[in-house]
Amino acid sequence: MAAVGVSVRRIDGEDKVSGHAIYAGDLRLPGMAIAKVLRSPVPHARIRRIDTSKAAAIPGVLAILTRDNINVASNSFGAYVRDQQILATDKVRYVGDMVAAVAAVDTHTAQEAVGLIEVDYDELPAVLNIDEALKAGAPLVHENLDRRDPGYGRYGSHVVHHDTNICLHFRHERGDVGDGFKNSDQIFEDTFYFPSAQHYPMEPHVCVAQFEGDVMTVWSATQSPFPVRQELARVFGLPFSAVRVIVPSVGGGYGAKSGIKTEGIAGCLSKMTGRPVKLAFGSEETFKTICQPRAKMTLKTGVKKDGTFVARHCEVYLDGGAYANSGPSVTEKAGYRAHGPYRLPHVLTNAYSVYTNTVPAGAFRGFGGPQVAYAYETHIDMIAHRMALDPFEIRMKNLLDRGESFSPGDTPIDCDLKAGLRSVAQAIGWDAKPDAHQDSGPKRRGIGIATAMKDGGGTNKPANATVKIFFDGSALLSTGSVEVGQGMRTAFMQVVAEELSMPTDQVRVAVLDTHYTPFDKGTNASSATSIMGQAVLKAARDARRQLIEAAAAVLKAPVDKVKLENGMANHGEQKLSYRDVMQRHFRESEGEIWGRGYFKIEKDNNVPLGFPSPFWEIGFGAAEVEVDTETGEVKLLRYVSLTDAGKMIHPLQCHGQDEGAAVFGLGQALFEDLAYDKGQLLNGTLIDYRLPRFTDLPSAFSTHIMEGGGGPGPYGAKGMGEGGILPVAPAVGNAVFAATGARIQAVPLVPELVQKKIGSGKG
Amino acid sequence: MAAVGVSVRRIDGEDKVSGHAIYAGDLRLPGMAIAKVLRSPVPHARIRRIDTSKAAAIPGVLAILTRDNINVASNSFGAYVRDQQILATDKVRYVGDMVAAVAAVDTHTAQEAVGLIEVDYDELPAVLNIDEALKAGAPLVHENLDRRDPGYGRYGSHVVHHDTNICLHFRHERGDVGDGFKNSDQIFEDTFYFPSAQHYPMEPHVCVAQFEGDVMTVWSATQSPFPVRQELARVFGLPFSAVRVIVPSVGGGYGAKSGIKTEGIAGCLSKMTGRPVKLAFGSEETFKTICQPRAKMTLKTGVKKDGTFVARHCEVYLDGGAYANSGPSVTEKAGYRAHGPYRLPHVLTNAYSVYTNTVPAGAFRGFGGPQVAYAYETHIDMIAHRMALDPFEIRMKNLLDRGESFSPGDTPIDCDLKAGLRSVAQAIGWDAKPDAHQDSGPKRRGIGIATAMKDGGGTNKPANATVKIFFDGSALLSTGSVEVGQGMRTAFMQVVAEELSMPTDQVRVAVLDTHYTPFDKGTNASSATSIMGQAVLKAARDARRQLIEAAAAVLKAPVDKVKLENGMANHGEQKLSYRDVMQRHFRESEGEIWGRGYFKIEKDNNVPLGFPSPFWEIGFGAAEVEVDTETGEVKLLRYVSLTDAGKMIHPLQCHGQDEGAAVFGLGQALFEDLAYDKGQLLNGTLIDYRLPRFTDLPSAFSTHIMEGGGGPGPYGAKGMGEGGILPVAPAVGNAVFAATGARIQAVPLVPELVQKKIGSGKG
Repeated sequence: MAAVGVSVRRIDGEDKVSGHAIYAGDLRLPGMAIAKVLRSPVPHARIRRIDTSKAAAIPGVLAILTRDNINVASNSFGAYVRDQQILATDKVRYVGDMVAAVAAVDTHTAQEAVGLIEVDYDELPAVLNIDEALKAGAPLVHENLDRRDPGYGRYGSHVVHHDTNICLHFRHERGDVGDGFKNSDQIFEDTFYFPSAQHYPMEPHVCVAQFEGDVMTVWSATQSPFPVRQELARVFGLPFSAVRVIVPSVGGGYGAKSGIKTEGIAGCLSKMTGRPVKLAFGSEETFKTICQPRAKMTLKTGVKKDGTFVARHCEVYLDGGAYANSGPSVTEKAGYRAHGPYRLPHVLTNAYSVYTNTVPAGAFRGFGGPQVAYAYETHIDMIAHRMALDPFEIRMKNLLDRGESFSPGDTPIDCDLKAGLRSVAQAIGWDAKPDAHQDSGPKRRGIGIATAMKDGGGTNKPANATVKIFFDGSALLSTGSVEVGQGMRTAFMQVVAEELSMPTDQVRVAVLDTHYTPFDKGTNASSATSIMGQAVLKAARDARRQLIEAAAAVLKAPVDKVKLENGMANHGEQKLSYRDVMQRHFRESEGEIWGRGYFKIEKDNNVPLGFPSPFWEIGFGAAEVEVDTETGEVKLLRYVSLTDAGKMIHPLQCHGQDEGAAVFGLGQALFEDLAYDKGQLLNGTLIDYRLPRFTDLPSAFSTHIMEGGGGPGPYGAKGMGEGGILPVAPAVGNAVFAATGARIQAVPLVPELVQKKIGSGKG
Repeated sequence: MAAVGVSVRRIDGEDKVSGHAIYAGDLRLPGMAIAKVLRSPVPHARIRRIDTSKAAAIPGVLAILTRDNINVASNSFGAYVRDQQILATDKVRYVGDMVAAVAAVDTHTAQEAVGLIEVDYDELPAVLNIDEALKAGAPLVHENLDRRDPGYGRYGSHVVHHDTNICLHFRHERGDVGDGFKNSDQIFEDTFYFPSAQHYPMEPHVCVAQFEGDVMTVWSATQSPFPVRQELARVFGLPFSAVRVIVPSVGGGYGAKSGIKTEGIAGCLSKMTGRPVKLAFGSEETFKTICQPRAKMTLKTGVKKDGTFVARHCEVYLDGGAYANSGPSVTEKAGYRAHGPYRLPHVLTNAYSVYTNTVPAGAFRGFGGPQVAYAYETHIDMIAHRMALDPFEIRMKNLLDRGESFSPGDTPIDCDLKAGLRSVAQAIGWDAKPDAHQDSGPKRRGIGIATAMKDGGGTNKPANATVKIFFDGSALLSTGSVEVGQGMRTAFMQVVAEELSMPTDQVRVAVLDTHYTPFDKGTNASSATSIMGQAVLKAARDARRQLIEAAAAVLKAPVDKVKLENGMANHGEQKLSYRDVMQRHFRESEGEIWGRGYFKIEKDNNVPLGFPSPFWEIGFGAAEVEVDTETGEVKLLRYVSLTDAGKMIHPLQCHGQDEGAAVFGLGQALFEDLAYDKGQLLNGTLIDYRLPRFTDLPSAFSTHIMEGGGGPGPYGAKGMGEGGILPVAPAVGNAVFAATGARIQAVPLVPELVQKKIGSGKG
């Protein structure tokens, strides 16, 4: 292949590094107003009164939006449960809930006016974590939720009674865990805690909304422009044809940018003022908008004497915060994956999405995978230690083989997991490992490994693409996938060039515009290359077919004798450039070829989540740490990441994706956690919240990418970019245990926690 | 019909009158530079040296573009002859020719820097009008033109030798005029002069050009985005897929906005600076960019005693200015129409496009029609007067009947010309007309009539449209026609709503974007409703067919039993909204229906211009004037305009179009003319150039629109909006003659000219 498997120049690379790329926040439209929002200072309260009179008196204030004048057809929204409002109506449910918004001539005026809005609250008791939320008689975050809302209670999930903070309960069962435990030689039960992290995209949430010519146009930093269109159409009572979402350059998403965030308020203010309105959250506001669900997970596993797994019972609680967002889906996915990539005849999992009065949680790179992988990969190490088995060997004994089922009826495992594990173990020097925690001195080294897997996403996504060949023979691809930094545009350009046998410099990828781009559900779950890629390939092949037909007609040759090669259509000695083919074939009509491609994973009600997994995304990791036993500081010395790309379209980007994922995992393993005090987020700024820095990278850091060819994407490509995050926290935790003998069942492994555990004796 | 024939609310009306509509000049992109150009102060010269050093020293100057550093693949462009450069290279050819350009941080800096660029010219003798240009040994405007350029010398036009200022010679002959004149009882020969007018769109030429992500994006106020894309692709050496032309709201075109104007320079400066660059001409610069061709026309007609025409010989010279633009095409059209809508067995026309060292001339509302209509409608009145025949009767005797041929092989006349003429004559009171110029006193009244016809345009235009039905049942139309103010978007919305049997509020029209919009040649020649309208109708019908098929599948009904009515698909008692049809049919694929429509007038080499006329656009006028014989002032008291719309999609807009056209004609009849002194344009500002004002409107002004149903457009619609301009100047001139007995063979009828003619005795 000429264009695929090559690390060609990245389309958006130069513009992004040189500052030329244009983001939604860069837009300036004539007369554009700037919006700012007022947020709740209390975690749970009824709003008694909102007084905007002082704010309205500030010169330059153009409009103030509150529940009292909100101009929408429907004020509720939500991808799975319509539990959120454009602006709070009766209650606020977390510190940061949006209560009012101001549009003004500039940022300063808007901010000043926001500060003058007076809100009287009747404070209510709040539930601030999973345990509080689940207590009998706990205050309810949502009293009167209509649980019949679309998306709620799909598949195996249960509809839960009204008087609870459980948003969703997903149950997954096979075999009989009771019988399984009876037939086990030993049973182990452990509880684990995983933190709530911030996505921290470089670009916070931002949009510009404008009503012009009966069309609401929104330039938005969103991963899901079509769902945003759908929500805005409903909220504003408009037909789809009157809502246009355009996606300029996007500065990262990681799950944060699904669903409407700024768009509803900006739209209301634009309607009120008759002006374009920009609403850009600061990064501190983004901290208060969406985060990763915090998790509490208990795993109970029955094991034979030789280490063979028999049964596993998982109880998974995800803290969904104040609003559901994608939390229900994350919960289902976490629950489905909770028992790990192991052969387990008996499984029972209950997974719960729990409302609390904290920042809403939802989709986050890994989508519930990092939480449960941390639990099952720490648990397996603990089992091995208790049974005096080798952590590597117990994994090898229980790992699923290629072709085996993760869950009956679901797609068979599409790569060699054992080869992957062996590979990372060898790379970290597993066989030669010193019994590290026996070292003397305050600094001790240890190594740890972890294996993890997630079912691929994009299952419910219809993927569409069009490939147009212009009259000059050049090609344009249009797809609904968003370039959030993953390199999708470049990879798709390669696929189109490959399928059309033309140089990549003749191919461009169109800007995403819901008026024009064929429908797509959103860019998430490692589905761009794998799922959309297939639609792109089909669209290119459809265009290729038409181009060959045109060439055959011009060359008076049979269709099957025309060969395309490097921008030329050849029939024997006759050679025509694509430009000539187009111009001779279409002549005065100056026609264009429009190729269309469609791909969708078909529904299968026999599979727990309603769709078979399109592929299995894996993430294997091996870590060497050095722990300062006096301070508790954990230093990651070496890290090896491994995933399976199926086929690498653009190798450099694949490695970049895996590196990025591993660094995300590193943050959650060592530093990241949203800390609250009485519902107040304590570290919602970059000064207080510790993101990984380049200096945190291990000095030896490598990513290994298998090309097992098992994916549904072009040329066997699978999704990737999330797998790498999954094993980091357990691999690091396992290495810390190896180094110190201290078993810590929570991340991040901040020095205080590690030092305390070491001090309290070995786990 | 529910949606058609009704003057529904205009889509872009409110935004335009309230100032909310966004034009290219309103755009502000981050880091955007502002460009200004330096223009030649002399009509004809070689450029010896350009010194930009002083200009470059100004702080805030980002780039200076001259012939010495121009960064293009090809510096020549032109729709018919590639005779123009992005910036002048060897020579300047008129006062206003662009020599250099500056990009700076703001307008003031750019303007200041432009003023500091030093250019040394070697002045050359100039040819400033048609007569000078045609003299033997005249200086050549273009010495080394490659006349093999595309578009040059099509159809019956001749390729002319190198050493002449004739750009194009079109010859049209039928019968034998020599024989015709021999068989005539009387022969009359007269020469006429028609002025060069300015289009004066409210919005001057403007664009913003930007290179981002390997794509050159241009937001341009253009009537012809796809031809602009093609030229830019060639100039910059880019594939079509890398050039994206977006058309925001456009403030009028009238032919001025065809082809590249500002886009080439803005693109070069954007490449140089790495920034978006805005280049907005002031209205004074627009005066120096493009105008209507000045004309000198001699008509010689052989007539039988009873007034029956036998033969006509026309010599038409159009002053094309320094560059061809669309001048060659205008010349062909003017030549083809020069003998008028009359039965003439013998015709010989020579039409010439002539280069001079004046502002380039090209397409202008009427496209050569007003010039020749002025000639043949004044000539016919002069013949009538000399033969003592009634001007109305001589026209009625010679006018073509419906179904008769204008030219053998061409489309038969598609409306009742005689009924039209009778109608305007009656409206002005022809039968009761006083022998006005016999009145005593200094102010004299008279009436005049004129009939005119032009072949419809858009003949070489492939028209494409797509109509998408979204998953919620709403519809979006995409077409390459530009809304230049004519109301195209609203009319097309009506056609789509009508064809889809849905309320108009469910239909929107997409923004024009060459990356997405299906190909179109440009919006000109009254072709939007008539030619593109047919593609729109077909696209809507294609979508309707698919919607019916979907509904039939959902309703389990035969396709031919499903009826669409007001947004509902019905089968007997079963009724489903379009939303329900879409959602039940496409289900989880959330599919969209894409309907496509294509229409093109087929080539026919038997017709002089290579294509049959798609329709005949007519313009009949009747005027009553009052002439102050002492001052020469002509006041238009009453004016009646008549055209044939075939079928009015939106009656109010049709009347608006015809009123606008008549006012254009009024300007050329009474005020408008670009005046030069030694090649210097004297009145290239709104202070000096006299456009019609509301106070110039006749107190009685009516437009009559026939609906003859003969057009190729939806429901029989024909093009309109140009017809109204054609008869004004001759009708007014004929009325002045009736009032004063002074026959003036030139317009505009400015007081000096009228007074002089009256003073010199009757014509």
